[in-house]
Formats: sequence, C-alpha cells, structure tokens
Amino acid sequence: MIKIDYTNVMAETIGERDGILREELLSFRHFVVEVHSRIQKEKEKKFYFAKLPYQDTTPIKELANEIREKFDYFVLIGIGGSSLGAEMLFQSLTDRNYNLFNKPKFFVMDNVDPEKFHAILQQIELEKTCFNVISKSGSTVETIANFAVVFEMIKEKLGDRWKEHLIFTTDPEKGFLRKFGEENGIKLLDIPKPVGGRFSVFTPVGLLPAAVVGIDIDEVLKGAKKMDLVCSVEEHVEHNPAYLIALTHYLANMRRGKTISVMMPYGERLSSFVDWYRQLWAESLGKDGLGQTPVKALGTVDQHSQIQLYRHGIRDKIITFIQIDKMEVDYKISDNIPEDISYLSGHSLHEILNKELLGTKVALIKSKVPNITIVLDKVSPYNIGMLVYLYELATGFSGYLYKVNPFDQPAVEEGKNFTYALMGREGYEEKLEEFRELYREKYKIEVQ
Amino acid sequence: MIKIDYTNVMAETIGERDGILREELLSFRHFVVEVHSRIQKEKEKKFYFAKLPYQDTTPIKELANEIREKFDYFVLIGIGGSSLGAEMLFQSLTDRNYNLFNKPKFFVMDNVDPEKFHAILQQIELEKTCFNVISKSGSTVETIANFAVVFEMIKEKLGDRWKEHLIFTTDPEKGFLRKFGEENGIKLLDIPKPVGGRFSVFTPVGLLPAAVVGIDIDEVLKGAKKMDLVCSVEEHVEHNPAYLIALTHYLANMRRGKTISVMMPYGERLSSFVDWYRQLWAESLGKDGLGQTPVKALGTVDQHSQIQLYRHGIRDKIITFIQIDKMEVDYKISDNIPEDISYLSGHSLHEILNKELLGTKVALIKSKVPNITIVLDKVSPYNIGMLVYLYELATGFSGYLYKVNPFDQPAVEEGKNFTYALMGREGYEEKLEEFRELYREKYKIEVQ
Repeated sequence: MIKIDYTNVMAETIGERDGILREELLSFRHFVVEVHSRIQKEKEKKFYFAKLPYQDTTPIKELANEIREKFDYFVLIGIGGSSLGAEMLFQSLTDRNYNLFNKPKFFVMDNVDPEKFHAILQQIELEKTCFNVISKSGSTVETIANFAVVFEMIKEKLGDRWKEHLIFTTDPEKGFLRKFGEENGIKLLDIPKPVGGRFSVFTPVGLLPAAVVGIDIDEVLKGAKKMDLVCSVEEHVEHNPAYLIALTHYLANMRRGKTISVMMPYGERLSSFVDWYRQLWAESLGKDGLGQTPVKALGTVDQHSQIQLYRHGIRDKIITFIQIDKMEVDYKISDNIPEDISYLSGHSLHEILNKELLGTKVALIKSKVPNITIVLDKVSPYNIGMLVYLYELATGFSGYLYKVNPFDQPAVEEGKNFTYALMGREGYEEKLEEFRELYREKYKIEVQ
Repeated sequence: MIKIDYTNVMAETIGERDGILREELLSFRHFVVEVHSRIQKEKEKKFYFAKLPYQDTTPIKELANEIREKFDYFVLIGIGGSSLGAEMLFQSLTDRNYNLFNKPKFFVMDNVDPEKFHAILQQIELEKTCFNVISKSGSTVETIANFAVVFEMIKEKLGDRWKEHLIFTTDPEKGFLRKFGEENGIKLLDIPKPVGGRFSVFTPVGLLPAAVVGIDIDEVLKGAKKMDLVCSVEEHVEHNPAYLIALTHYLANMRRGKTISVMMPYGERLSSFVDWYRQLWAESLGKDGLGQTPVKALGTVDQHSQIQLYRHGIRDKIITFIQIDKMEVDYKISDNIPEDISYLSGHSLHEILNKELLGTKVALIKSKVPNITIVLDKVSPYNIGMLVYLYELATGFSGYLYKVNPFDQPAVEEGKNFTYALMGREGYEEKLEEFRELYREKYKIEVQ
C-alpha cells in the first residue's frame, strides 16, 4: 500500500504565499486530460517504460538462477542509469548485511575511483565472479575503463574461460559492447531501444542484478503494473498519484518559487531510492533554465543538519517525506532505565523514528514549508515497484508541464567530449583546442 | 598542500552575470580587516574552535591505546555534530575496507532506525565492545534512545562490568550523560563549553574515535594549526583562504543568485567530508531567510545524474570541486585491449578521474556556472586538518557577512518539542495541544 498525503502543500494548511490552492490544481483539468490521452498513445514510443512491467521475466529469472549456482560474487560494472536502479532495488529490498551472510555477494563498480576499485577486488575471487557490464551506448568511459582493467585480469587469471564470466547488457544493435560481445560469444542482454538509462530499471539493467540477489522481481513488476493501471484509468489529478506529484511540484516551483525538491525518507533502507530519484528528476527536467534541484536528505539524521535551514533559510523548498509503517525488526526501550530518561520507556526505536517525522512535519507546517508524505505500509518488492513507476510517470508527465523533453540529456555530452580530448582520443583535436582557449588557472591561493 | 583555484568564479572567466568582479572582492577590504581583528579577539569565546588545534592530545591518545588493547569493536552512539566529524575522519583517512582487516572495528549508531541498529548488533560482540556515547546536551533523543537499548543489553550480558564498556563525551557540567556518568563512575570526556556540535571535531568528539581507528590526530591538528596560522596572519581576502571561500560564496549568493552551494569531490574517500560540510554550512548560516543550501555531489558519478541540471537548469549554483593529486593505489589500462577502445590504453583510472573533472569543469565554464577547485596533493591527516579548519573559519567569517550568529540553531528545537509531546513526555502537554490544532490529514490518495 502507498498513501500520498498532500495536505501540507495546500494553501489551506500553510497559506497562499507558500501553499497551492485547490482551484489551481483543478484549473489544469483540461491540460491533464489532454496529456493523459497523449501518454496512453506514446506507450509504444517515448513512454515505452510503461510497457516494461508487462514483460515475461522467465529468461531473466533463469539466467539469475544459473548465476546463483555458478558464482559467489556478482559485480555490476555500470554508472548512472546503468547502476542506480539496481543499487536502489538492492539496498531497499535486501538485508542491510546481505553481503555478510549471503551469496552471490553484490558489488557495484561505477566510479573510476581506483581506491574503490581496489576495495572491491580485495573482496572477490575472480574465479568465482560474474561481471555484468552495463551501458546503453556501449561506450560509457567509466564503464569501459573499469571493464578494460577487469578484462586484462580475468584473461590472465582464467585463460579461455574469461568469456563465461561476463554478461553485457546494452543496446540491441549498436556500440562497442554489442560488437565485442557478439565477436567473442559473450552472453548479451538487450536494453530496449526506446528506453534510456534512467528509465531502465525494469529492463535487465535493474532486474537481472535484483533477481541475482534474490529479490522477487515479479512482485516488483506487479506493483508497477498496479500503479500503471491506476494511473491509466484516472484522468483526474486528485485521483492520479503520478499527475498529482508532478503538478504539485510544478506549481510549487513555478508559482511559489520552490526551486528545490528535497526527498527525505525516514528509514535508511530507502536512502538509495533518493539517489535514483535525484538522477530521474534532475536529468529529465533540468533543461531550458528550468527544473527543480533534487536534494537528498535522511530522517532523522538530517534533522540535526538541515532542518535549521529548511525552516529558517530561503523559502525555496518543497519536501517529500517517506514514512514506513512496518519494519523488519524493532527494539523496545524497557522500563528499567534511569529516571531522567524515563519518558522513553515503552517506546520502540521505530516508533520514535516515526514520531520524529511527525514532529518535524508539524515544525515545518509552522514555518509554512510545503511538504508531502508518502506512506508505505512496508518496504516490499510490490511497494517499491509502485513507487518507482509512480516517479517515472510523474517525471514523464512533468515534461509536458515544463515543455521539455524528459527523455534526453543534451548537456551531458560536452564534458565527455572535453575528457576525450584530454585523453588524446582521435577526432577530438578541435575540442582540445577549445579546451586550451577556455581553461585558465589564474586566481589561486596555496597553503603548504 | 592545499590549493584553491577560484579562477572560474571570476567575471573574467564566466562573465559578469554569473561571475564576481575583482573590484567586488576588494571592496570588502575594510570589512575584512575589521572582522579579522574581531575574530582574533573572539578566539576565547565564540571562535573557541580556533584554539582546539593547540591542545595537548596525550590523554586522548592514551585512552585510545587502552581501547585498542581492550576492545575489538568501537561503537559511536551520537548524531549530527556528534557523529559527522568522526565519520568524516574515519572515511577520509582509513582504508575503505578498514573494518574487514582491522581492529577495533568502527560503527556509528546515529539514526533511530531499528534495522540499522540491528545490522550493527549482528556485527559486534558485546563483551568486546566499547560504546562511546556522545551528546553535548546529554539528552539528544536519538542518542539516548539508542543508548537506552544498549544499556539494557550490556547490563544483562556483562553484569557489573557494563560500566567499563562505556565512555560518555558530553558537557563538562550539565545534562543526563554527565550526571548518570558521575553517579556510576563511567569514564567521562569533556566537550569544552563554548564549542557546539558542528564545530567539535577537534575535541574528544572527533579525536577519540579517530585515534581509536589509528589516525594520527597530531598530524590532523598540525594541519589545522597551519591553516590557523595562515588565516591569522593574512588580512587580505586574496591571501586568506577562509575569507576567500566565505566572500566568494556570499557574493555568488547575494549578488548573483547562487542560492545553492554544491560540493563535488572526485574521490569517494571525501564523500563524508561533504556530509560534514553540509551540516556546517546549512545549520550555521540558514537563518533569517538567508543562507545557501549545501548540496552533496560526487564525481564522476554525478556527471551521469546532475550535470545536465547544473549546466542547463536554473542558474542558482556555485560548485566546489575537490581534486586529489595522488591516491593510495591506481590501475593502469594496458595496450592489450580491443581496438575500438584503444584510446584508453596507457591511461590509469585515477588519471581518467581527474581528466573527467577537468572536462566537466570546462563544460561548466562554457555554461557560465561558477566553480572553485580545491586541490589536495593527497588525502593525508595534515591536509584534512587544514581543510576542516578552513571551512570552520570560513563559516564563522560568513556569519559576519550574513549578519547571523553562525553558532546557534534556534529552528531545530521546535520539531524536538513536538516529538517529546507525541511521546507523552511530562511538561509538553501544551505542545500536544498545539500539534492537534496544526496537524490534519485531509488530502490523500491511496493505492492498495
């Protein structure tokens, strides 16, 4: 079960300067109906992610079972949209100590940080490791660089068997991974053409790693299907959770100056859900000088770090809390504690966590900071499936509100091109020239 | 060595709409000189953190050695300013796999998340664990709640010896921890009166855990002293790194609309330095409707998540990159790799990391996004000591620029009070009444 409580973004609760009027929401009625029907038609194309919950997962589950039998370590080599989804499913839906007590152990090589790379190598045995290299384009620098180092290592260590330790997840036709994989008989998995990285968690990109660590991916997709069903039927913004998330954030941003969207789960399990959301929101909508800056926070920890700012700083934030009603374990405080702290007796840690959320929420209401609460009855595969689909659709819908294409990322290329130039890659000589014109180190202070 | 390159915040590089004029910096000359002399005088009071690098660390080192001999696990129970400093030193200055290969293993119980609590319990043995409970006030809810559960457990498991497994770090006179500690003969460490949580990393709050995990705390303080020395001598903003950081951010914020301060290290080791900075910047300056929102990012990972937004979204950001010139390990890509990716041959992961930083920086220059780069020759205790002191002083100085008190956090209390009320704590009956008046759940969507 997912419940979205948006009482505290409404003007009724926090006033008209910071809150949204019900009339404003309803004035978008015709717009919503029109976009709704467009989205239904675009599910074969731009909104293809909406079809993914209906796939047959048998091949993925079979492959995952093979991997679970053959390997003790599963290393995902990928970055951004190729890693955040799998990490989110892993952190949300497996035990926090999964790698201590389970196999295959799961690691992600995303960054080109040699210390991180080294730390993962220290924890695996190459003979027992499956490397899943993931890149839609097949040429992401970080991914290919990490792969290149691994490639040398497994060839040396495993001889001809190196190919059996690799799985490539990539474009069905193009790119280096596809070509090299086909030439060498490496197991290849397709990322459907119309699906970009940050919308790919329900392709093999997210589902294979999830199945390998024992997550019930059918339950995840069942939740996504349920959310798709609700959102396909409901044209009214007050009954469609995805459109509601999109429209409240859009109005908060464009009419109330809330340029920052904070997401603050109370429950560390959902911490990497926010990393996934951050990419989705920023890369999809950060265009044409528009888009909110997504900010990651964590309850209760950030009460002791960010709440001062959220209450008394610039009035530029809308906050999404995530509340978990039931947790896997809990610890109750006994009656046998010192008198001075006896007000804690009988309460449990989880209860305190949720009371702190409630206390923080009311403090924010008093400061007129708009906030939405998403309540999950528990962190289950089904609920995470709903939540993921909810935000994917909300993001797609927001594209229409902001009048930007939520499925591209044109501003990302430039930095890559300069990097290629700096690495001396052929064909980037002009970029190197441009770099030399733009880059100076003139104003500096140095302390030895 | 620390080098601050601020070429790319200057109008010369990115234009006057987004960049700062040298005249603007220099126009604060008299202000800087005046504040400088005030700060020197306030080192006995508000700026007491500036005296901490000069302390005698012998007692901390001796205690740390005792702990290292007697215990296999060291658990810090504390949150916010009581944990972020120690975690930052731990993550920056020990091996990423420290807990796999070293003793005492180090854990932090900050949140009241029962799953996190449980996961730590699974990894320790109470008979071999030292719990360091840290709270300036001695009454932080999360800390005392976690302590209360631990208290029951160690009393049951260890009998009379429970006291030997506790160290309290708290106010020298007041609060529950002080009182209970004195009554029961528990080892007590003082947090000097004038030092608040987020400025306390150079007290036993940060230094004892650091010494326990084997960090050379004298080197850390040596770096801090060096930075203090430079900043005490240099009155000119172009030679004083702390004033420069403060003034460039202030001008970017108040005169160029850069309401967000992103900190983006290239090197995962420094990831928790940003968590520490986030609290320092937000809680110190987020007052009177002012202050920047600090945002955590990580290179290269967030190139694939946030750079689209930073380049083409709202023009509200100033970015601080942190570059590391030398890392502990590195991996070079051989010549023996497939032709299609041969442009990677001969490059190392660390080299690629830093070239990506350079490429990203130039892409941001092209989009006229102001950015500063802090270069460390390596991540050493000395350099981290410099960096920490640099930001503490920059924050203190910023208080004068924004005309706010950087050492209090008045907006944090309200949420706590509502939480106490919800827990039925005596004396909070009126707050409960107020809660009931303010809190509604009227607008909701639910999906089963």
